[in-house]
Amino acid sequence: VYKERNLIAHIRRLAFASAVKSVAQGIGDDCAILRPAPGYELLITTDLFVENVHFRPAWHPAASVGHRCLTRGLSDIAAMGGEPLACFLSLGLPEDSSQTEVTQKQVTQKWINGFLKGLLSLAKRHKVQLAGGDISSARQVTADIVVIGQTPAGKAILRSGASPGNRIYVTGALGGSAAILKQLYAGKPIKPTRSNTHFYPVPRLEVGAWLRKRATAMIDLSDGLSVDLAHICKESQVAALITAKLIPIAKGANLELALHGGEDYELLFTAPRRTKIPGQIAGVKITEIGEIRNPADYSSAIQILGQNGKAKPLAQRGWEHFRKKR
Amino acid sequence: VYKERNLIAHIRRLAFASAVKSVAQGIGDDCAILRPAPGYELLITTDLFVENVHFRPAWHPAASVGHRCLTRGLSDIAAMGGEPLACFLSLGLPEDSSQTEVTQKQVTQKWINGFLKGLLSLAKRHKVQLAGGDISSARQVTADIVVIGQTPAGKAILRSGASPGNRIYVTGALGGSAAILKQLYAGKPIKPTRSNTHFYPVPRLEVGAWLRKRATAMIDLSDGLSVDLAHICKESQVAALITAKLIPIAKGANLELALHGGEDYELLFTAPRRTKIPGQIAGVKITEIGEIRNPADYSSAIQILGQNGKAKPLAQRGWEHFRKKR
Repeated sequence: VYKERNLIAHIRRLAFASAVKSVAQGIGDDCAILRPAPGYELLITTDLFVENVHFRPAWHPAASVGHRCLTRGLSDIAAMGGEPLACFLSLGLPEDSSQTEVTQKQVTQKWINGFLKGLLSLAKRHKVQLAGGDISSARQVTADIVVIGQTPAGKAILRSGASPGNRIYVTGALGGSAAILKQLYAGKPIKPTRSNTHFYPVPRLEVGAWLRKRATAMIDLSDGLSVDLAHICKESQVAALITAKLIPIAKGANLELALHGGEDYELLFTAPRRTKIPGQIAGVKITEIGEIRNPADYSSAIQILGQNGKAKPLAQRGWEHFRKKR
Repeated sequence: VYKERNLIAHIRRLAFASAVKSVAQGIGDDCAILRPAPGYELLITTDLFVENVHFRPAWHPAASVGHRCLTRGLSDIAAMGGEPLACFLSLGLPEDSSQTEVTQKQVTQKWINGFLKGLLSLAKRHKVQLAGGDISSARQVTADIVVIGQTPAGKAILRSGASPGNRIYVTGALGGSAAILKQLYAGKPIKPTRSNTHFYPVPRLEVGAWLRKRATAMIDLSDGLSVDLAHICKESQVAALITAKLIPIAKGANLELALHGGEDYELLFTAPRRTKIPGQIAGVKITEIGEIRNPADYSSAIQILGQNGKAKPLAQRGWEHFRKKR
């Protein structure tokens, strides 16, 4: 299907089109060299993106797979309030169709080109250089995306900074990605348009950077609100109370999907009560959904105030991707 | 076989034992945070390590697989003259034995622990912190290792710095890893002792750091001498003449394996004729094997001077890992 050296040469040509200043050496040596701005520190995140676990060739066009793969990394940089600089792609590809587990479609050179196009056009939009990576044969398409970003030293927003009394906010609307996935599981044909945020999610980099001076804790919603809020509570050693009717639900979704559906890549953050958080940042809606509480007052980390006015513990049901056996 | 959250918690505990100063934030947030020393720049390398491509469970004990996986990354840092700081591990693991392609042995919790032990004991020896990663289910064991290192700004040794007249050197002896692999292919049982450099290769970090002020170009011998020297010639736009009888051949190997066998993880470097290179650096033997030439004088990039006193072109035969169909 592919020749490793040709593919590397091809990727190297594509990658050079988006060369950025802080990358002193990109593809073509034993290591890439990054020169962060003085007084800055580096953010590093790695995410695996595996065929039939994180995407399905029958459902997701190649460009959507590349876009979603890089979004996972960029969204992690956004959640620290950082600015992305460079990415690295390690790609395991089936060598021939008899070895691959891709049952619906074959991984062809055309598929690989579509994947790279989806990934690199998102990279270009955010001035991120593809600075290295690796290629190997593998039984299924396996992409590991590494994204490197920067923030002024000591200024990254961690999960561990939330205090009792802080307000809890989310960007955008939730559950939209899971709603589409549910339809795909049910066998409904969904047109993968560019505006569909399941296929082409938008990493909230501008919002994240704006919040760097205001938020006390932040995380991106990749696993789902219930799980990701639990991460903030655990790392900050706090509890949280959220209000069901305040949660912004995406079109086509419901409260269940908004609470537990993953891959929306919106931001969840906390800020002191007195910090003014506008209703919109960089064109993205911001919604207050609850408050950080003292953990001593609660039997479980997260309580949700229902329509009936009663609070009850919120289970962490998390996102199981495509783990169901086919 | 494994519970993702339990495994992450387990790895986090193991990783904290080797905490290093330049890692401001390790596992447990959206990104890791690295604080390079002032005046330094960062080196980044990623390498895929895939079951039945780069290792075989029947041949390689789990600890050897973890050790070899990290060695690939550390060796890339050594080849730039760098000092390693942190690593990131993305790990795809079969969820149950019916899904895995591991035919010889099953990937069990014990196997995973052995793999981590092999990787982390090498990391500890070189003061490298495991600072993050990702876990996913996959059809075969797939590890992507990212290693981050540093060098004083502008001082990394690239592949592109060789000039005509420079002498060509290698560390250690070559072909030893391929000789073992050949025996494994032939069905010979080999005891995977700690001193066997196929199973436990030694990344040449001390030698690489020592050479930072002396070498003009450097690469690690992962693909094999013929291919890796061609990389230096291509990036430096030079030709090379090496002498067959000068090449240091490992015990059990021959000239063929020394020229084309991969995964020795020795260093190949060039230095000006007048630079004094000792016969031993940090306890490792250094051998001069040839000279960089003007490319205009040669029809092919690399010529080898044989026992008969005649020079002929050296083909790049490169290392095909375990690509043969089983």
